[in-house]
Order: sequence, then C-alpha cells, then structure tokens
Amino acid sequence: TTVSVDQIPGLNTMGISLVRIDYAPYGQNPPHTHPRGSEILVLVEGTLYVGFIASNQNDNSLFTTVLHPGDVFVFPIGMIHFQINLGKVPAVAFAGLSSQNAGVITIANAVFGSYPQVYPDLLAKAFQLDESVVRELQAKFTHPR
Amino acid sequence: TTVSVDQIPGLNTMGISLVRIDYAPYGQNPPHTHPRGSEILVLVEGTLYVGFIASNQNDNSLFTTVLHPGDVFVFPIGMIHFQINLGKVPAVAFAGLSSQNAGVITIANAVFGSYPQVYPDLLAKAFQLDESVVRELQAKFTHPR
Amino acid sequence: TTVSVDQIPGLNTMGISLVRIDYAPYGQNPPHTHPRGSEILVLVEGTLYVGFIASNQNDNSLFTTVLHPGDVFVFPIGMIHFQINLGKVPAVAFAGLSSQNAGVITIANAVFGSYPQVYPDLLAKAFQLDESVVRELQAKFTHPR
Amino acid sequence: TTVSVDQIPGLNTMGISLVRIDYAPYGQNPPHTHPRGSEILVLVEGTLYVGFIASNQNDNSLFTTVLHPGDVFVFPIGMIHFQINLGKVPAVAFAGLSSQNAGVITIANAVFGSYPQVYPDLLAKAFQLDESVVRELQAKFTHPR
Amino acid sequence: TTVSVDQIPGLNTMGISLVRIDYAPYGQNPPHTHPRGSEILVLVEGTLYVGFIASNQNDNSLFTTVLHPGDVFVFPIGMIHFQINLGKVPAVAFAGLSSQNAGVITIANAVFGSYPQVYPDLLAKAFQLDESVVRELQAKFTHPR
Amino acid sequence: TTVSVDQIPGLNTMGISLVRIDYAPYGQNPPHTHPRGSEILVLVEGTLYVGFIASNQNDNSLFTTVLHPGDVFVFPIGMIHFQINLGKVPAVAFAGLSSQNAGVITIANAVFGSYPQVYPDLLAKAFQLDESVVRELQAKFTHPR
Repeated sequence: TTVSVDQIPGLNTMGISLVRIDYAPYGQNPPHTHPRGSEILVLVEGTLYVGFIASNQNDNSLFTTVLHPGDVFVFPIGMIHFQINLGKVPAVAFAGLSSQNAGVITIANAVFGSYPQVYPDLLAKAFQLDESVVRELQAKFTHPR
Repeated sequence: TTVSVDQIPGLNTMGISLVRIDYAPYGQNPPHTHPRGSEILVLVEGTLYVGFIASNQNDNSLFTTVLHPGDVFVFPIGMIHFQINLGKVPAVAFAGLSSQNAGVITIANAVFGSYPQVYPDLLAKAFQLDESVVRELQAKFTHPR
Repeated sequence: TTVSVDQIPGLNTMGISLVRIDYAPYGQNPPHTHPRGSEILVLVEGTLYVGFIASNQNDNSLFTTVLHPGDVFVFPIGMIHFQINLGKVPAVAFAGLSSQNAGVITIANAVFGSYPQVYPDLLAKAFQLDESVVRELQAKFTHPR
Repeated sequence: TTVSVDQIPGLNTMGISLVRIDYAPYGQNPPHTHPRGSEILVLVEGTLYVGFIASNQNDNSLFTTVLHPGDVFVFPIGMIHFQINLGKVPAVAFAGLSSQNAGVITIANAVFGSYPQVYPDLLAKAFQLDESVVRELQAKFTHPR
Repeated sequence: TTVSVDQIPGLNTMGISLVRIDYAPYGQNPPHTHPRGSEILVLVEGTLYVGFIASNQNDNSLFTTVLHPGDVFVFPIGMIHFQINLGKVPAVAFAGLSSQNAGVITIANAVFGSYPQVYPDLLAKAFQLDESVVRELQAKFTHPR
Repeated sequence: TTVSVDQIPGLNTMGISLVRIDYAPYGQNPPHTHPRGSEILVLVEGTLYVGFIASNQNDNSLFTTVLHPGDVFVFPIGMIHFQINLGKVPAVAFAGLSSQNAGVITIANAVFGSYPQVYPDLLAKAFQLDESVVRELQAKFTHPR
C-alpha cells in the first residue's frame, strides 16, 4: 500500500511518502527503481533477503543482506533493487521514500511490457537474447490498455 | 527507535530517516517538533490520537484525528505535534522523516529543562506563570549533565 | 513588522524575507520558532539578550549572548529562541529569514492557546503541571475566534 | 565521452555535466537510466531514434521520436531510455545532465551482469525466463573483476 | 558591513546572510550583482533611489522606486542593481541575502578592473567604445595586486 | 539557439537546458551572465578563447583558456563570461545550463541599453566615464520598444 501525494494531497511539498509492503511466503518484490526518491526499509515481520545493484561507475556491484524484524536497509535513489521473503510465512515491511511522489519502475514490466512495445531487435541486442525470446517476453509482459 | 544518519552513516545524502515508535498503554509522545523534517506516520497496532498545532499565521489551529491500524497522518515540518495511545494495550507506529537528520525538540524539556536554564522571569512572563511555578518546573525538567 | 511573501508577492521564489522588530523597554520577544527558516538578527539600537535552545540531540543546550548595536546573532531553523530588551529605552533589530514564508510559532500560544484546545490532561502530563493550572493557562492563552 | 565531476573537479557544486555520444552506423545506446539527473540531448550529425519508458504510474508508456541534426529530446530523471542510430553513417549527439555526477545504469548489465550475481531464480521469476536462460545471460554479461 | 559565512562560520548551512549598508550623502552603491543570492533591502534612514535591470528575456527592463524609511525592495538573484542616496544626509539600509555566501560582482570593477585584464579589443567591441577609452578605463579600475 | 523551458515546456522541473552557439569568424559572445544557472561548454568546431571574471571576493580574477574541438570549460553561476572565435572559420559549441530557465544578461545591453535608461550621471560615476560618453553609449544600446 503506497501512500504518496496522489493518495494524500496533504503530502504535497512534504518531500516524503510511506509504503507498507506485504510479502507472500517466498514472495518477491521484483527488481525495480524509484526514479525520484531514496528508500529506507524496516522489516516488521518475517525474514527478508534484500539487495541493490550499484551503477556502472561502481561496477554494477551487488549489495545484499538478510533482514530480521527491526532491521533496516537503505536503497539509494535510482538504484535497481529487490526484496524476497525467505520464509514460509508472510513478511511485512514499511518503507519511507524521500519524495512525495517517488515513482516506481518495475524493470521487467518497463523493458518488456511498455506500450507501445520497444522494437524487439533493439531489446534482443541489448539483452543478448533471440528476437523470438524477446517477442515471447513482450507477449507475457504487455497488457492490453 | 530512531534510525537517522547518526546510526547509519549510509543514510548521508539520502534525505530520509525512519522511526519505530512504541507506545505504552495510555502512553503519550508529548508535544515536540522536528526542526529539519516533515513526518509521515502509519499506525501498525493499537489506537492513536494524534494532532499538530499550526503556526501563528494559521491561528494556532489544532488538527487532530484518531488512527486505527493502517491509518496514516502527516506532521508538517517544524509544527508542534503529539500522539497518545488511547488503548490499554501497547501501540506501534512507524514514521518516515524527510531528512537524514530531522532532529527532535521536546517542547517541555527544551523550554523548562535547558542547560543552563532560561531565566525564570522570562519564562514566567512568556507562559503567564508564577516565577515559583517556573522554578519548580525547571527543577523537574533539568537533569544534571 | 514582517515582510514576507504574504505582504510582497514579488518575494515569491526569492527564498528570503525580512523583519523589523521593535522592543519596548525591558520588553521581550517570547520563546518561538520559525518552522521554515533560519534567522540572522542584527541589533540597530539598544541592548538585547538573545538565546536559543538546541534540540534533544544536543542536550537542549542553551546558547545566549548580549548584543550591542551592530552585533549579529543566528537562530538555526526550527530552534526555540527569544530576545529580551535589557534597557530602559526601546531597542530595534532587523532579522533576515531564509524563506519567503518562514512562519512563526509562539510556543506558549501554540501549546496553551490552540483552537480547539489540546486536552488538558495531555498537557498536564507533558509539562508536569496540575490539570487545573493547565486549564488556567488555556483560559489565558486561548482567544475567541 | 562523459565530462562529469570525476573528470573535472571544477564541476563540483555546479550541478551539471555534459556528454558527447558517438554512435556507430546502426549502433545503439542500450536501455539505461541516470539515477541522479535528467538529460537533454541534441543531435549534431546523423539520424537518431530515441525513446524513454515512463514509470508504472504512467503505465510504462513508451515515448519515441526520430531526431535529425539540431533536434532536441529530453529524458526525465531515472527513466529507462535508449537511442539508436538509424543511418549507415556515424551519428553524433551532445547531452547535458542536471547533475555533476548523474551516474549511468545500463539495465542489462546491472540486472544480469552484477557482481556478485543476483540469484538466478529471482531473475527467472521476475523476467519470466527459464533459469537456464538467466544463467546464460549472466554468463554473457558478468565480466571477471 | 557584510555578515556572511566568511565572518561567521556559524552561518554555514543556514542559507542566509545580512548586510548593513551606509550611504554617504548623494553616495551610490554602483551597479552590481549577487551571483548566488536574492536580496531584500529595508531602508532605515534617509531616502534611497533603487533599481534593478531585468534579463535579456525581459528586454532589460529597468525597475526603480524611491524608498523612505521602513520601505522595502527586492533584487532578484543575479540581476544588475544599484542604490543612490538622494539626500544630503547619510542613509542606512539593511539587506538580507538568500545565501550564506551570496558574493558580489561590481560590474565596472569586474569588466574593466579584472586581473589580468580582458583584451581591450574584446571590451571595445562589446561596449562599442574606442579601444583607447577601454584602456583608460582599465587603467582606472585595475589595482595592483 | 537556446533550448529552454520557453521553447520546450517538457523541460519544466528538469533543471537543465541546452544551447548551440554559432560563432562567426572572429566573432564574439560578449560579456554576459546567467543569473540562474552554471554553464558547461564543449567546443565542436573551430578555436575559441573563453574566460570568466570571478567575484569581488576573489579579486575579480580573470580565468581564461583556448579551447580546441572536444575541449570543455565551465562558467560558474552568475559570473561574467565571454567567448571569442579565434579563427577565420565559423566555430560551433554546445553549452548545458543547470536550469530550465537560466536567463541571459548581456552586460553592455543591460547597463547601457535598459529601458527606461538608467540615469546617465549614475553610470558616469560608476564607470568613471564622461556623462556625454554615457549618453552616446545609451543611444547606441537602447532600442526602441
């Protein structure tokens, strides 16, 4: 459940928003970025494997850790990051974002599910995949609008 | 439990911090301000009465509400605000702050418990209290350092 | 006399405002904060005792000094501060504020004179005062609106 | 050729950097983001197909156009974007970035070429690919360090 | 008398500074800019003619007025501005600047008194002056260092 | 050719704009400032002599260099700067500005060509010129509007 300026107009000019994230057993929050905000996450229930991937300038280094209730992790603005529930019970976390409208870009959805679709040969080259695989992915990720 | 740049140096330049607040039954978080950050609070457990007092320009209007789990409230930067646990069981909330170092000023502690103490006659005049009452308050709020 | 964006729309986006403060003999500017601006004050006439109280993180330390004409003092954003005219003649100061709309919160007025009033028992507990004293203060500080 | 604060310390606090981008015939600048800067690009030579994909909140809409010399395009901060040289001759562009250190994250390299690697099953689930395909991609994108 | 971060290190991060300006009878504060701050000026004594010149985009329009004690004027960041004491007695003003280090560039001193000097033919062309006049001006404005 | 928020509304909130500058043989971009942006310039064709003059606090020091294609130079916000084409062929540069609306103030045009005109005696005093010279300059620089 995201609480941003779209839900609460009173957040405007406050420079902050808050998210409650519920994870199904073994569920994941897939790789995504927040284009306009850094994130600080605190785990409330369950066990969470979290990580982010640094930029090219930092060799795309992967930083990960396992969180237990009460633990905190920070995802710097614009970095690709993810969380996985390691447990067979639900996990719950709260995350603060340093913007009243931080935005979310789920990488797979944006790259393979944009509308209109990106030219398959461009993605094939960029991801070193067969064009046919790209077309399959686009079919899976692109929803009718 | 506050998580700010003092606890996690990695928060530096992130512009955000996070607080978990545990309220004893009928306990309160007394009137205070954050000099360098707005706050967004989400209640996780219990029932909370929350409010903030607007500035002189807005006639020191008091804005309050009762929060149930999942409810959210916003305290604008620098405004005096408070929370009270209305229940006979503990309450738990998480709050995001729009700064890596928002600071806290508990009004009573700052006014009556500063070190050195503020001249009692100044406070007596400002709060329209007898100087003897101010001295009593200062004795209660000023801790040896 | 405050000159902020409410008085001069041309101040909008300038990020600054200016105040002239006239102090009656032995008069005071009681403890207050500016929620959205730091203040730099220069004394032009008279003798002024000035001070601010730091946040909890800095042990609510009190910083004070006596200003003579030409002297300057700085009040950091959101900190509780005050000035007292030490002389039997009027004093005059000018203060710049780092916002076109810094706001003012007079502590006693906000805490005891909000409208509607804060529950007396909350304030009694926070300020370690008898509820009857709080009710008296609220009667003094709350103006009909 | 990027000119950022790493190359020119004098850029520090200037809030801007500049990039010259040379495109081989039919070459592409694959999908990437700048985590800390918006980009404005002007084409100097050649013909360029450019686009960016909006965030989830904007349905991952794809915005594209074809640029001719002198044309300009803007990529908002944190959005996934790309350029392709449509011609059989080299293309040249200049791009300004709204930060002295905007950073670059090439999506495919970060997701499949991080070091250490992201767990293949996490990526398999996120991208709806067979784990074997993910492992192949990781082998291609992960360079020894 | 300028009070900026160079004089008072405590001003650092406060985003504000303050200037007292004393004008001799019929004296002027010649055309200058503050590269990093807007200015708000209040006249305390005397009569002041003040003005600023807008940018090329606003047709270099000149905005002026005459100030009496208590009057206020605003000079937007980076605009060329000036003040003249219209009276045969001294005038006194205070000015707040929206930066702890706003800087000052006196136009004539910078253009004709830089060190080393700007090539005279460049200035002759820019100001449509004879090169000999430029050389004379440079001789007047350039101080040995 | 300037590309700012006036030309491309999409630049709004992006904090950046871009300029292509074409220099005639031996042509100059006369002394000017950008009141709301720093500039980073890259030379693409030709040979350019560039410089900026620091503020009074830095003794109006002149910083210059000669740029060849591919070279880059930075002009800090609000500083007076200029460029001259040293060659007998056209020169071409691109410049990024750290604002979507950085503004331009051509010094000679603003000082001597404002509308209405600045009082000649003020400029005569400030620039140590005869009033008759100032009037001549104003006649040259002031365009009917």
